[in-house]
Amino acid sequence: MRMSRFGDATEIRRIAEGRYEADLDGGFAIGDALNGGYLLAVLARAAVDAAPHAHPVSTAAAFLRVAEGGPAEILVDTLKTGRTAATSRVTLVRDDQALVEALITTGTLEPDTEPSWAGAPPAPALPPYEECLTSGSGEVRGRGFADQVDMRFDPATMGWLDGQPSGRPEIRGWFGFTDPYEPDAYALAVAVDALPPVALNLGARGWAPTVELTWHMRALPAPGPLALHGSGRLVTGGWFDEEVEVWDSAGRLVAQSRQIARVGRKA
Amino acid sequence: MRMSRFGDATEIRRIAEGRYEADLDGGFAIGDALNGGYLLAVLARAAVDAAPHAHPVSTAAAFLRVAEGGPAEILVDTLKTGRTAATSRVTLVRDDQALVEALITTGTLEPDTEPSWAGAPPAPALPPYEECLTSGSGEVRGRGFADQVDMRFDPATMGWLDGQPSGRPEIRGWFGFTDPYEPDAYALAVAVDALPPVALNLGARGWAPTVELTWHMRALPAPGPLALHGSGRLVTGGWFDEEVEVWDSAGRLVAQSRQIARVGRKA
Repeated sequence: MRMSRFGDATEIRRIAEGRYEADLDGGFAIGDALNGGYLLAVLARAAVDAAPHAHPVSTAAAFLRVAEGGPAEILVDTLKTGRTAATSRVTLVRDDQALVEALITTGTLEPDTEPSWAGAPPAPALPPYEECLTSGSGEVRGRGFADQVDMRFDPATMGWLDGQPSGRPEIRGWFGFTDPYEPDAYALAVAVDALPPVALNLGARGWAPTVELTWHMRALPAPGPLALHGSGRLVTGGWFDEEVEVWDSAGRLVAQSRQIARVGRKA
Repeated sequence: MRMSRFGDATEIRRIAEGRYEADLDGGFAIGDALNGGYLLAVLARAAVDAAPHAHPVSTAAAFLRVAEGGPAEILVDTLKTGRTAATSRVTLVRDDQALVEALITTGTLEPDTEPSWAGAPPAPALPPYEECLTSGSGEVRGRGFADQVDMRFDPATMGWLDGQPSGRPEIRGWFGFTDPYEPDAYALAVAVDALPPVALNLGARGWAPTVELTWHMRALPAPGPLALHGSGRLVTGGWFDEEVEVWDSAGRLVAQSRQIARVGRKA
């Protein structure tokens, strides 16, 4: 059964206890390098399959080597199994080399849980979907990752595209898939790493390789587009941090992430 | 040579390639459980010893089992060695059980690096040291971790102590060690996990076990007390997040962390 491009692209096959195969979809690459969030979605599927719980509540991942499309293995080592949470070491392997290693803690989030406390949504809010800039999905093809996602960006955060970086490390946008796929845990894994690097608004250029990314799934997302709020605190010594909050169409914080990355070299 | 209580407590002995011994100091426990930041300091020392770089730039750790004082082993598996960064899997082991597992990326931070961009310090600021509440160090003994650290808390964030939680998940305070030890990478590892859980200001009580904590060292800290700004975004389904920013006496952001933890059960 074909689920959707993203559903198919994150399919895993269990070949032994704690061992899975995947055929990584090169369509989710930027250049030759598969998007980190896409890889985390594949790893999360394996972690959940091997665990007694339904959701990847916490994922901390080190990106070791560039991953291109094609067959790969996922190794899941269970470190602890508990009643409310279980933790595994999950490694994406090709040619006996680890490409990504992650610590994934699974738990089960209930659909109708009311928060006992929730912080205010980030300000400024994202403008309505129709007032945001398209990433061009459906018009141009052959751009890899950008063809797979339907993203609409807050114009106030996209000046860098025209050589007018805003001077603030912030990028905001709406997120969904071109081939429809309703938000779930795996879509959230992509969402937290889907924005262009916030350092682009400080004049950085080019690819900004993620060194480490940790994200937490906080609630089951409602159907509809996800609002992504990306920001950073410090750029120094060639390193920058990027925080992303993901809010769903029901106005709930559903995921939060921080990554640390290397500043891209200027062209 | 005796360095200081904290220096001694984080000493490691290399017994083979990628294998270290430590004698964990029960004086850094809260109840029977050693403070998580203290454990991360010990793991960081092993990671740096095994790496070609000087500082633990990124640490992501899963807390699997309660660690008490006493001898333990640290296993360091090098996953990648690069020119600017190297990444290891670092595991704290006792009786063949993993207590903590971490992904640690080392790099070398230069002392006089000027940030190319820096966000504003968090508001509100921490009141001056002398206007903050003592944790009682030097007066009462036998309280474990609280005896090892010299912390002074912003009174506005300590109402929970008197049954008057502020209703906001925020705690702020100054941080140092009772037995003087100048801030460095290992002190920062303790600082990011030294505040009482921010959920206490929402009426939570008791121990709030950390499930995962990721922290990044962003700069070499200047001598003097560290300012800790702790806050949270969401408490739901028994999970809460806690972010801590650490600012040094020179007014620089030197470390940032997020942990996800279980809400303590009410007494």
